Amino acid sequence: MSSKTSVAVIGSSGAVGQEIVRLLEREPWRDATISLFGSERSAGSSVPFRGENLTVNLLSTDNIVGYNIVFVAATSNVSRHIVPILASFSTFVVDNTSAFRMDPSVPLVIPEINFDSIAPGCRLVANPNCCTIIMLMAVAPLRVFGRIRRIIVSTYQSASGAGRPAMEELETATRAALDGRPFEPQVLPHPYGFNLFSHNTPIGPEGYNGEEEKIIAETRKILDDPEIMVNPTCVRVPVLRSHSESITVEFDGPAPAESDVREVLATFPGVCVVDDRENNRFPMPIDANGQGDVLVGRIRKDISNPNALSLFVCGDQLLKGAALNAVQIAEKQFA
Amino acid sequence: MSSKTSVAVIGSSGAVGQEIVRLLEREPWRDATISLFGSERSAGSSVPFRGENLTVNLLSTDNIVGYNIVFVAATSNVSRHIVPILASFSTFVVDNTSAFRMDPSVPLVIPEINFDSIAPGCRLVANPNCCTIIMLMAVAPLRVFGRIRRIIVSTYQSASGAGRPAMEELETATRAALDGRPFEPQVLPHPYGFNLFSHNTPIGPEGYNGEEEKIIAETRKILDDPEIMVNPTCVRVPVLRSHSESITVEFDGPAPAESDVREVLATFPGVCVVDDRENNRFPMPIDANGQGDVLVGRIRKDISNPNALSLFVCGDQLLKGAALNAVQIAEKQFA
Repeated sequence: MSSKTSVAVIGSSGAVGQEIVRLLEREPWRDATISLFGSERSAGSSVPFRGENLTVNLLSTDNIVGYNIVFVAATSNVSRHIVPILASFSTFVVDNTSAFRMDPSVPLVIPEINFDSIAPGCRLVANPNCCTIIMLMAVAPLRVFGRIRRIIVSTYQSASGAGRPAMEELETATRAALDGRPFEPQVLPHPYGFNLFSHNTPIGPEGYNGEEEKIIAETRKILDDPEIMVNPTCVRVPVLRSHSESITVEFDGPAPAESDVREVLATFPGVCVVDDRENNRFPMPIDANGQGDVLVGRIRKDISNPNALSLFVCGDQLLKGAALNAVQIAEKQFA
Repeated sequence: MSSKTSVAVIGSSGAVGQEIVRLLEREPWRDATISLFGSERSAGSSVPFRGENLTVNLLSTDNIVGYNIVFVAATSNVSRHIVPILASFSTFVVDNTSAFRMDPSVPLVIPEINFDSIAPGCRLVANPNCCTIIMLMAVAPLRVFGRIRRIIVSTYQSASGAGRPAMEELETATRAALDGRPFEPQVLPHPYGFNLFSHNTPIGPEGYNGEEEKIIAETRKILDDPEIMVNPTCVRVPVLRSHSESITVEFDGPAPAESDVREVLATFPGVCVVDDRENNRFPMPIDANGQGDVLVGRIRKDISNPNALSLFVCGDQLLKGAALNAVQIAEKQFA
């Protein structure tokens, strides 16, 4: 980015927004100027950046125009309102919300996988759902072994996917459970301490919840394969900021050898193979927290189907699952 | 049980043993006399029973003989040593360990599913692995819809499966994480607070760990179907005493209608359907804790395969996953 590059972050006080601001301290952004925007609740507060404090401005349709790059880390409603306004300027927008993800004219991008879906002159790129990103970082590289026809995935999702208030509620709920006190949830629908529950998005007509429907649709779009079948089960577990996923991948033909899979994944950017059978060391949230890489392990041929392969993955929901992927899109676009 | 029925519980101070003692307060055992046995560590301690305190005796090969019914809730090594001695007496043994589960001469029993595998005169019955029991309570009833050819299961296992020390370590580790203190695990291989990890049993040649191998082998034995394929991924989550499982079942033919599945499960003894799509209410550990029933929900046709069905189940690991199933075997045998 040149010293003339102006960057705005909308929703800079949220869990994802704060990670975006932190990532803008990286080398490629050294000369850029950064401005922060938020709702009435956060306007006026300050966010540490490069050793100083940046003040969060109140977002309005007037003051958000004119930036070269805008990251949207607010709600889908904010995005639906603001993005069309930015579109009339020459702003490059990376939208972390689900507002435009399934719009056929908007590329949905994981830079390591389908950066080439960003056409020249494109001004709006959608950042995929966190579970989709973390899953596809492990699954997409396997296409070198043949067409993937079906993915079965059960998630172990962290609190951070529901934002900072949910992370705080996990801690409060857990303290209550440890002390044997009753707990009335305010943010999530159920007490979260030492508990888990089906993802709290509405259930659609086919019995899949909103989070699962996103994974199905986004996988097809990112892999550019409308035929690929995905069966997700999304579950929230009492973990703070990394998502884990148990994945079974079915190929059109016989599954590849485990050693070949390990080799392909080990050389794929953004993936770290953690698959130490001897010491029983596999991906864990505490190892993924704060890491940019998605950890992949438990790599094995599916004992129940010669065409299938099973994996266990773990990735920081706030980083590769959200903020890092968004920042990487802009870095690659302006590299 | 008659007033002459003498019952011994080996391992009565452990997490499962204590639940067995509690369950022996049920009506069928009203007239039975109960004796408790344990290792040197627990001998001499007392366990509350019917408003009194029973003293735990030091287990020896001399004092354990002569009982009508013995529950083994100790280690597999204790079982391998003691059970052959009991076999020479007319004692009926229910063994909660894995020592004899795969012995072809020993029935492996979930009373609601295969009680008829206990032949007349049988003196030793093995209690299955907790994950196997909880999974099959939901899956076995579905055989009325046709042959099941494949089960894919990802577990969300509680601390209790590793015993009381693991439950205590989950609490200690979580307090440390909440306070930002470092934590050195003593019982489990990894810090457990707000973390999850692949089940800590050794990985076999095909990449499956010991817990997963048990689920595969025990499912085949209990369903009396050596051909059924099972692909388990076993994961420990920071939950105290209920196991959850995300299950996909593939039939030889088209999957049954969801309403038919709900009806069959709702009438199956020991199963409670919790499948409220409108209010997003499905099985959760906090609802399963202390319950004898296995909760089943998220019942839906697998969107990725017309022959498959997906479910989410939750059951108390210490009750139906261990102690309750063992006590039910004896109750049915002596009914």
